[in-house]
Amino acid sequence: MKITLLDGSVKEFDKALTVKEIAENIAVSLKKATVGAVIDGNQKVASDYLVDKDCTLELVTNKQEGMYDEFISSTAAAISAYATDQVFKDAQIAEVFYNADEYEFAFTFHRDERLKLEQVSKIQDEVNKLLTTDIKIENKKVTETNDLGLNTYQLHTADEEIYKKGYAIVTTINDTYKIVSSEPICVEDKLLKEIHLQQLTGSYWLDDSKNVMLQRIHGLAATSKKELDKKEEILKDRRSRDHREINKTLEIFDFDPLIGQGLPIWLPNGTILKDTIKDYLKEKEWEYDYVQVQTPVIGTLDLYRTSGHLDHYRDDMFQPFKAGNEEFVLKPMSCPHHIAIYRSKPRSYRDLPLRYAEHALQHRYESSGSLTGLERVRAMELTDSHIFVRPDQVEEEFKSIYKLIEEVLATFHIDIDYLSFSVRDPEDKEKYYQNDEMWDRAEAELEGVLKDLNLPYKKMVGEAAFYGPKLDIQAKTAQNHEITISTIQLDFLLPEKFDLTYVDEKGQLTRPIMIHRGLIGTYERFVATLLEQTKGVLPVWLAPNQIEIIPVGGTDAEKYAEQIRQEFKKRHLRSHIDLRDERLSYKIRDAQVHKIPYQLVLGKNEIDNNTLTYRKYGSEEQTTIPANEFYDLVSKQVAEKQ
Amino acid sequence: MKITLLDGSVKEFDKALTVKEIAENIAVSLKKATVGAVIDGNQKVASDYLVDKDCTLELVTNKQEGMYDEFISSTAAAISAYATDQVFKDAQIAEVFYNADEYEFAFTFHRDERLKLEQVSKIQDEVNKLLTTDIKIENKKVTETNDLGLNTYQLHTADEEIYKKGYAIVTTINDTYKIVSSEPICVEDKLLKEIHLQQLTGSYWLDDSKNVMLQRIHGLAATSKKELDKKEEILKDRRSRDHREINKTLEIFDFDPLIGQGLPIWLPNGTILKDTIKDYLKEKEWEYDYVQVQTPVIGTLDLYRTSGHLDHYRDDMFQPFKAGNEEFVLKPMSCPHHIAIYRSKPRSYRDLPLRYAEHALQHRYESSGSLTGLERVRAMELTDSHIFVRPDQVEEEFKSIYKLIEEVLATFHIDIDYLSFSVRDPEDKEKYYQNDEMWDRAEAELEGVLKDLNLPYKKMVGEAAFYGPKLDIQAKTAQNHEITISTIQLDFLLPEKFDLTYVDEKGQLTRPIMIHRGLIGTYERFVATLLEQTKGVLPVWLAPNQIEIIPVGGTDAEKYAEQIRQEFKKRHLRSHIDLRDERLSYKIRDAQVHKIPYQLVLGKNEIDNNTLTYRKYGSEEQTTIPANEFYDLVSKQVAEKQ
Repeated sequence: MKITLLDGSVKEFDKALTVKEIAENIAVSLKKATVGAVIDGNQKVASDYLVDKDCTLELVTNKQEGMYDEFISSTAAAISAYATDQVFKDAQIAEVFYNADEYEFAFTFHRDERLKLEQVSKIQDEVNKLLTTDIKIENKKVTETNDLGLNTYQLHTADEEIYKKGYAIVTTINDTYKIVSSEPICVEDKLLKEIHLQQLTGSYWLDDSKNVMLQRIHGLAATSKKELDKKEEILKDRRSRDHREINKTLEIFDFDPLIGQGLPIWLPNGTILKDTIKDYLKEKEWEYDYVQVQTPVIGTLDLYRTSGHLDHYRDDMFQPFKAGNEEFVLKPMSCPHHIAIYRSKPRSYRDLPLRYAEHALQHRYESSGSLTGLERVRAMELTDSHIFVRPDQVEEEFKSIYKLIEEVLATFHIDIDYLSFSVRDPEDKEKYYQNDEMWDRAEAELEGVLKDLNLPYKKMVGEAAFYGPKLDIQAKTAQNHEITISTIQLDFLLPEKFDLTYVDEKGQLTRPIMIHRGLIGTYERFVATLLEQTKGVLPVWLAPNQIEIIPVGGTDAEKYAEQIRQEFKKRHLRSHIDLRDERLSYKIRDAQVHKIPYQLVLGKNEIDNNTLTYRKYGSEEQTTIPANEFYDLVSKQVAEKQ
Repeated sequence: MKITLLDGSVKEFDKALTVKEIAENIAVSLKKATVGAVIDGNQKVASDYLVDKDCTLELVTNKQEGMYDEFISSTAAAISAYATDQVFKDAQIAEVFYNADEYEFAFTFHRDERLKLEQVSKIQDEVNKLLTTDIKIENKKVTETNDLGLNTYQLHTADEEIYKKGYAIVTTINDTYKIVSSEPICVEDKLLKEIHLQQLTGSYWLDDSKNVMLQRIHGLAATSKKELDKKEEILKDRRSRDHREINKTLEIFDFDPLIGQGLPIWLPNGTILKDTIKDYLKEKEWEYDYVQVQTPVIGTLDLYRTSGHLDHYRDDMFQPFKAGNEEFVLKPMSCPHHIAIYRSKPRSYRDLPLRYAEHALQHRYESSGSLTGLERVRAMELTDSHIFVRPDQVEEEFKSIYKLIEEVLATFHIDIDYLSFSVRDPEDKEKYYQNDEMWDRAEAELEGVLKDLNLPYKKMVGEAAFYGPKLDIQAKTAQNHEITISTIQLDFLLPEKFDLTYVDEKGQLTRPIMIHRGLIGTYERFVATLLEQTKGVLPVWLAPNQIEIIPVGGTDAEKYAEQIRQEFKKRHLRSHIDLRDERLSYKIRDAQVHKIPYQLVLGKNEIDNNTLTYRKYGSEEQTTIPANEFYDLVSKQVAEKQ
């Protein structure tokens, strides 16, 4: 058996060995450090996995931080699930979860009675006890699920694994308790020193149509107390940045079960924020000669049959509904709608590029378990555009789009993680429309421009849209989720499917090329990102309430406050008067909590001198200036997008 | 039998008499002039109708212009249908249509082969022949449809009439041919001198789900050649004002069968027009202290069950569709969505009035036969608002809303026809929520304010919404269709159904009152009205393309044109350069056809002097002024909404 290591060196063994044994064979020090391995670049295995054929092998030690954490977390998840089973015999463990992105581990279980928070501490006690004992963890490959004593949930997971990979890994703890997971459970429990159970939540089993709600416990795992403290600190910061947390005081959005899951309601504050962003984007689009259009939020199934969305995208779409002799579906994308506009009259080479922009509402059927505040929703407004160009205009147009995106993201101080250049997987005959010449041409064209612009990028095979290659601009959220902010996609396919043409200089009918452009993605996700990046401290031009006015001293002060509010209104500045029966200090603190850029405290002094006394967010300093100067100061900041 | 006439006088007869006989009895001159009558204020009958019991009777003579026309048209429709049957034996006549609003009469028929336009002239010839002969028209009451020799379509209409009224009127022409109509056919064919068949179109039978397309012939009827000429003139003007006609050159909207019937696509020009109106309305709403919100375009069935829409409004809604364990429907109204926002947190008396405005997309399932350009659509954006007030704020808020509406309509020079005050029909136990006290209170409150404001209004019994009384501001379109532009509706019901509260000054939970406000109705219908009222000659501030630039003299002129366009862009003025290979005179004419407010012709003279030569729409005069002066001129007009 030949094992190729990461550095390219090859080790030969004459019999099957576990990962641990191979590690020991390479270096004794590696034996202790190794928690698992990655085989052939894609299969994660635990250290007790028996390697029995030629492969490449990457050992996972504490040098691979993310993955090492994940292995440690897997042990913690398994032990915590086992502890839960020990304490509550009626809890049926369903699944365990752990990955580097999520940071926490978690496990789900079914139990008729809902666990109370104080009952979690009983499990924590059991976990602590287990950590001081010898725990025996064993992974076993099985190809059959009969007679294993698995519960309904574990059976489902095991059967799915066997169906997909030909086998499942069943992990036994202390010879009795069993766990089934699609990822390996690390058996090196001695490395694990700390487990801290943190939260109790709920999640649907498989999908919400079954209506089975499981209970979910979250926790942190660490190899030392110091590491645990550090992890808890990071998690706390992350939680304070979570846009759902920030939303509690800023009141940007809401959900209502009677309206529906994952369907955001933009509250007054959120609508101001969104509209302010939209006005700015439309202004930039005007500058770049886009024309705005507006198309229906539904379309017939025939439309999406023609476009190919029904073949390639049906799982992400809502269910159709009939109306008369037509059958409709909520639109998941606007491409075919913009194509309808292009087709509405004959086009000449002089008309191109034709840049249709739409801030377009779309619906996608995300599983209810994946819905996350504004970050992942079922109704979203995309900053969408479809640009129809001649072949000789692709390069210039691509550069112009990239420039527009760069300018816009800079305005919002968005941190780009990297550029992702997605091409097709030539092996995937199902997802991708089969026309190699077309794909080669599109991919080469896009990559050529990327090189011309001298932009660094990662090439992602198999990540392209079904109609063409794309460039995604990636950022990371506070939750460490990677998200796509902007996108530019080349498309030779849809113009063909819809038989789009223009009359060229010689009077010939010619096929245009289509470019799909997402400027800042959806407003929902963008606002989530913005809130997390700013921790809710929005710049003045974006803050829903820019100035909180606190009158002090009865009716006169209240009248002056209203007069000042009208002055702000005339200048399109957003202010609010706090008339509550509360103490001044409370009102000032409350304005801070709500992260309002300016607080004005108005009393006799201000009335007599026609001045304003302001305090900036985060500062203790109070400044008194003539009212007019303050108007100019704030107006200038807004104009300069500060 | 006692017959009460319009003037209050009572005539007694000792036997049943026809309308004609009663007319003759009153005055001999009336005998010739009478074409029919209205019995008890609601039942239209022909002159051969046998009056056999006490009633009030209004004779219809040529003094009642609209209704007289309608009676004459009914005869013309019946004769034309008969003529069609004579010429094309395989045409099965379905229905005849005639009403004062539509102006034209029409009839529909089924025939496997589609009629050609030239075949209509054969029918016209037969009609002309019939007009010179004696035609015998008889109306008969029937309560049974067997053995009448009616075709499928006529049978359906007759059975429906019998079901609704207990009888149907079957009209026999020349003893053989039969027509069934829900309105009477006038038998005074001698008064009818002219019938002119005009158009051939198609329409669905009953509703489009059956997929039976009928053919439809339209025509005009008159008592003299002079009257016919006048009617044709009016119809021509009406057609030239038809927003669908105007749209052909202005390119405001489009429909695409692949997207779906009645779902408007706002083309670039239309989107500019709509967005310009929207920006203005939002500006006014800002002035009146509204806050904008944005809510999902779908909602669960449970939401509409709670609000009562499912009980009272289902026929106008699209079909529901499932998603997971939820069932959704396209929202027909936003009221429950705005209620969700109100309910999202506790409210205090200090927070009211709370004015939520949303320019909200809604869907209503109109029958495909009633879809009419932008005037009647299935997807529409309503200039919607829901205002939550304390009982003591109703009056002031109502007045403030009315003022806002007045200012907005004045800006658009919209001609108001009348104010319609709709109250419930206390007899209609099905449509209206049963709570007399609540209704009496709401109706009295609204009427009180109307009287206070000294506004003239028509009281419409049974036209109220299911949740409360309303005031509609009515206008007439060029097609003579009456439409509601703005609406103010009081609602005590929904706050109760959703258990809305606020904390009053004494700390008690109190029920708010809700006001529904439509500012200019839907953008779709409003833009249709605007196009018809202006004949497409939009004022400068609304014109999608404000300035057409026509460079003359090669590259230099084209460069100067582009430079000028950039100057316009900076000032947010909308211009377009005509670069086509066409003659100058053609381009100027084309700009006139497209009703563009300004045309600029740019040549050497303009380049050398940095001037612009412009011509206003509809004027022959050319004026040359320094470029800057022209920018200022147009900018000023836009700022002043001219």
